[in-house]
Amino acid sequence: MIQATIIGGTGYTGGELLRILAFHPQVEVTQVTSRRSMGEYVYQTHPNLRKVSQLKFISPDVLEPTPVCFLALPHGEAQHKIEELAQKFEYIIDLSADFRLKAPAAYQKWYGEPHAAPEWLPKFTYGLPELHREELKSARYVSGVGCNATACNLSMYPLLQAGLIDTSLPVIFEIKVGSSEGGASENPGSHHPERSSVIRTYAPYGHRHTAEVIQELGLSKVSLTMTSVDLVRGALATGHATVKAGVEAKDLWKAYREAAASNPFLRVVKERRGVYRVPEPKILAGSNYADLGFDLDPESGHVITICAIDNLMKGASGTAVQCMNLMLGFDETLGLSFPGLHPV
Amino acid sequence: MIQATIIGGTGYTGGELLRILAFHPQVEVTQVTSRRSMGEYVYQTHPNLRKVSQLKFISPDVLEPTPVCFLALPHGEAQHKIEELAQKFEYIIDLSADFRLKAPAAYQKWYGEPHAAPEWLPKFTYGLPELHREELKSARYVSGVGCNATACNLSMYPLLQAGLIDTSLPVIFEIKVGSSEGGASENPGSHHPERSSVIRTYAPYGHRHTAEVIQELGLSKVSLTMTSVDLVRGALATGHATVKAGVEAKDLWKAYREAAASNPFLRVVKERRGVYRVPEPKILAGSNYADLGFDLDPESGHVITICAIDNLMKGASGTAVQCMNLMLGFDETLGLSFPGLHPV
Amino acid sequence: MIQATIIGGTGYTGGELLRILAFHPQVEVTQVTSRRSMGEYVYQTHPNLRKVSQLKFISPDVLEPTPVCFLALPHGEAQHKIEELAQKFEYIIDLSADFRLKAPAAYQKWYGEPHAAPEWLPKFTYGLPELHREELKSARYVSGVGCNATACNLSMYPLLQAGLIDTSLPVIFEIKVGSSEGGASENPGSHHPERSSVIRTYAPYGHRHTAEVIQELGLSKVSLTMTSVDLVRGALATGHATVKAGVEAKDLWKAYREAAASNPFLRVVKERRGVYRVPEPKILAGSNYADLGFDLDPESGHVITICAIDNLMKGASGTAVQCMNLMLGFDETLGLSFPGLHPV
Amino acid sequence: MIQATIIGGTGYTGGELLRILAFHPQVEVTQVTSRRSMGEYVYQTHPNLRKVSQLKFISPDVLEPTPVCFLALPHGEAQHKIEELAQKFEYIIDLSADFRLKAPAAYQKWYGEPHAAPEWLPKFTYGLPELHREELKSARYVSGVGCNATACNLSMYPLLQAGLIDTSLPVIFEIKVGSSEGGASENPGSHHPERSSVIRTYAPYGHRHTAEVIQELGLSKVSLTMTSVDLVRGALATGHATVKAGVEAKDLWKAYREAAASNPFLRVVKERRGVYRVPEPKILAGSNYADLGFDLDPESGHVITICAIDNLMKGASGTAVQCMNLMLGFDETLGLSFPGLHPV
Repeated sequence: MIQATIIGGTGYTGGELLRILAFHPQVEVTQVTSRRSMGEYVYQTHPNLRKVSQLKFISPDVLEPTPVCFLALPHGEAQHKIEELAQKFEYIIDLSADFRLKAPAAYQKWYGEPHAAPEWLPKFTYGLPELHREELKSARYVSGVGCNATACNLSMYPLLQAGLIDTSLPVIFEIKVGSSEGGASENPGSHHPERSSVIRTYAPYGHRHTAEVIQELGLSKVSLTMTSVDLVRGALATGHATVKAGVEAKDLWKAYREAAASNPFLRVVKERRGVYRVPEPKILAGSNYADLGFDLDPESGHVITICAIDNLMKGASGTAVQCMNLMLGFDETLGLSFPGLHPV
Repeated sequence: MIQATIIGGTGYTGGELLRILAFHPQVEVTQVTSRRSMGEYVYQTHPNLRKVSQLKFISPDVLEPTPVCFLALPHGEAQHKIEELAQKFEYIIDLSADFRLKAPAAYQKWYGEPHAAPEWLPKFTYGLPELHREELKSARYVSGVGCNATACNLSMYPLLQAGLIDTSLPVIFEIKVGSSEGGASENPGSHHPERSSVIRTYAPYGHRHTAEVIQELGLSKVSLTMTSVDLVRGALATGHATVKAGVEAKDLWKAYREAAASNPFLRVVKERRGVYRVPEPKILAGSNYADLGFDLDPESGHVITICAIDNLMKGASGTAVQCMNLMLGFDETLGLSFPGLHPV
Repeated sequence: MIQATIIGGTGYTGGELLRILAFHPQVEVTQVTSRRSMGEYVYQTHPNLRKVSQLKFISPDVLEPTPVCFLALPHGEAQHKIEELAQKFEYIIDLSADFRLKAPAAYQKWYGEPHAAPEWLPKFTYGLPELHREELKSARYVSGVGCNATACNLSMYPLLQAGLIDTSLPVIFEIKVGSSEGGASENPGSHHPERSSVIRTYAPYGHRHTAEVIQELGLSKVSLTMTSVDLVRGALATGHATVKAGVEAKDLWKAYREAAASNPFLRVVKERRGVYRVPEPKILAGSNYADLGFDLDPESGHVITICAIDNLMKGASGTAVQCMNLMLGFDETLGLSFPGLHPV
Repeated sequence: MIQATIIGGTGYTGGELLRILAFHPQVEVTQVTSRRSMGEYVYQTHPNLRKVSQLKFISPDVLEPTPVCFLALPHGEAQHKIEELAQKFEYIIDLSADFRLKAPAAYQKWYGEPHAAPEWLPKFTYGLPELHREELKSARYVSGVGCNATACNLSMYPLLQAGLIDTSLPVIFEIKVGSSEGGASENPGSHHPERSSVIRTYAPYGHRHTAEVIQELGLSKVSLTMTSVDLVRGALATGHATVKAGVEAKDLWKAYREAAASNPFLRVVKERRGVYRVPEPKILAGSNYADLGFDLDPESGHVITICAIDNLMKGASGTAVQCMNLMLGFDETLGLSFPGLHPV
């Protein structure tokens, strides 16, 4: 078993890493840190791990080297520690936003301050296997992905790679998300009486994940609008773009089918019958699948692209483990086979 | 008290009419029909009316004339009965889609069959007071509104009337809706284990309410995308358009403030602090308010317009009663003062 | 219009008082206090009141006398201020737990400290009109009710008053409640990802409201078990008791029917058909009704009593206004006619 | 790999069997039947199995023998087919209620008609490993368990086996359940607008699962009260009993700890801090764990027992696979390691 460390293990993405790796056949977590909860069992924070894990949180000051390290810290912290951490850990996967953007200027624009370790940005690979699988196989430093960006990127990249979209026209993404996106700390807006049954459009434009969509899809005119809805896990991106003249539905089908055929966690969902005709995050809770769908208005050329994910899995910790598998030379699906529940 | 009849009283819009009018100071429902439930108390179908209403459903075959009549029938029925009904009732408000569109060709395009009474289309006024208040004051025949269309129309009409939108560019609406939109009859997709916690994008384009947005906003390039989410009552429309060159946020503010000032059920919600900074349907359940919000990306001119409503109130029965008030010369807010609950 | 003051207006019960009284035909709120939010409009805290109320929160230090005063303070505060408040306000209704219990010893037992103003306890009437209507008509000081206690008390008092229950045997109440019971302040357990979809049995026994059930029902062997479930407003009490020998279902029917006949906000819900056969809080949100149901196992004499309420209305602010109406000589239903929504 | 057949694979328990066994290291499903859906892929009914299973539903008329067979038919069917099925399958696990009760008279009392194959009742073992592990190891015919009965039985059996409960006094169970208990077919009460946010006490007494509690716990005076709440998966039983004189909390602790130590899927949850102090079904969705808790009122001897399960897993298909593991000589946890999600 290869040993792994999780730095910052009390949040939701840290908890998911613990859950996934508790059943991984090749990797085991031997250290997990939390200043606030050190000395406590991880199941006291992540109650689903009771009787599953006997790990306790330790102080980040007493870490031993391990081959693999996941960083699940709040945004802005990893960039200050990366130099030191790289001394101790061979493979580093940072789930925060610190090393997602290639251009220091982009980081400054979207995160409002200069990057503290810009020289490290080129050393990191953007950790979305569907777009960077080969690079990931030889990467030592990998950045996690933004969950909303991932739903947008996966929904549309097959069409962009196939050259089917008119990229001179604006592209609009509407993303609907569950409450786990806000993290594990409560706030007035997450109080159940105020958060239950919401349809709350926040960040009409300007969400930080826009930067990852610009970078990864190569789009210049693109906007993300975020809306919170009532579920815990799940994000659905609905993209609006325009196809090039002459593009037909069968061209779209081909692009998506090829994407699904060459990526173990992509599926095309476009049924004519039944309840589940389109991608839905509901049935993806706990799963690493990204379900893709689309529709084309042949009159106007308006194409609607859809991607459903579990924001904590394919949008964060699941994809991080998938990257780890690639980095370590394993089958990329190891430890990620849970298919989600129905009904749920 | 002016007497009113409700034809088709077992559905959700019929139930809302019964609830509203049970407390209306000038109008009382004296007849409500249902073939399926005739002979039963209305509270056996609408349990909130227990001890409130002692009405029983009667057969539609035994109706007496009353000054006012609401039609709450399934789409496609009213057009076959309008001739006969107009003999019996002076003021008719039809909540179905039968008389919403002015052009018979539009009806045929969007509803898939020729209209059965096209000569009646010009006799009906589209029942959205914010757009047709003066006409409504002298109307005898009024069509109800589509709930999704209403959220779209109210979100953007102030900007269009003020000439701030570049209507040569596409306009995209994303509408998120609760389960009551699907009506009172169950189906496999409305089964709670399958419907709970969904984010289900159906009708990516081509929803029938698009026709009402085209007609009422005068837009030609417009698309509606529908997504079901987990709540019962409520619809939120998020519109995406482009402002004309030179238009600034203060111009948008002015347009919305004027709309709210001249319409008793419009409110502008755009706060910098607190939980409820944007329009949200959650707090509108049972209310006739439509809450409006917006945002402008000054770099791109991308304007996001937001409107939250209770689909059964402002999107259906509430607006129908508002129209009735106008038709009968009453204050248009009569019987519609319930402000919604917080928390809920 | 009679003027009223609300002391402590940012919580959920304060918000409900503001909402109800905004439409009360005889009473208007002229002052509402909040140290934290003073200077802000009440609709910034209670967003359903936008365009409904132009009141602003004021400091509790600048209150003017008004005939009526509602105290909606955290538990434990009113007892320290009652002497001073009674100088300023003629009619006082305290929604906290401070003056609910008659016996100082009971207060100390259940609230863990001696009462600060025990001499005031006998001056207060327990504000449940179904049990104390005549006293309330001449009361100047009225205590609000515990929501869970109210659901228990209303569910079983008709049987106890009719002498049908064997009170020598234990009585068990199971109460299921929504998240608004926890008040307006967030905590780790109210964070939406942790609170959504729960069935969380807390306080298996020993809930403070037990004291009000003991006092008002005169039971000695009684236990309350509390379980949080996923809704915002609503409480359902299910009581388990044993009938005296020879008691039959028709005796129970008689007791409940009489209770409903003599109390405007009680209804008996016990249908053989339809979806809503039993009392359910779902359809009571915003309503002051308490719906009562029951069942009797004739073999064992086990009787199950059921009461559904909106915990913020019949369980708190609605009943408080009902008490105020009685105290001021008005019809007790004034301002309380909203029947709840269906569906919701 | 040992081959298994599922008869009746479109329901929720059939779907769970397919999901679990798709990842079982020793058993594979080679046949799954459905008259209604034959010829369709199982993922068209169970969308979480897309890209996981390529099985299609087949007619029950073309079954080949396999060593193992699960019956997931509606109640009442298996008893008519058992003779024939036993010719074809060596190990049979019937998830319906047909073979749960030992006494034909009990079957007739609780299910309202005589059993069609009473001679088969003694051949079946009640499939709850915590109570019948040794029998199961040599069983060929095993009955599945009632989900509500299982929550009740597991919550209290440690205390009964330890002789701590006064069984001469009545025992009351209150069970709160999610919507998946009602099965995969919609009905008016499962329509989302009517089922969402409910607290609906149905079956105040007399639920059929009572028979399994009587049989398995050996109680004579016991009652189950069922309440539907708003979640999809999950059941929580709260039991109320009285301890024998002299029994203390430490005796209860000992009984539960021993139960958890000797059963891989039992856990004791009784924390003094944190959000998850008590058993909750929320975090058990998809998991085979049963979480146990308790509390004792030392004054009255009233003991409250709590058990949380996923009704489709520990309450049905998970336990069925656990039984299969025991019957086939495997580790009983094979294929059942998914620990549930947090948050969810």
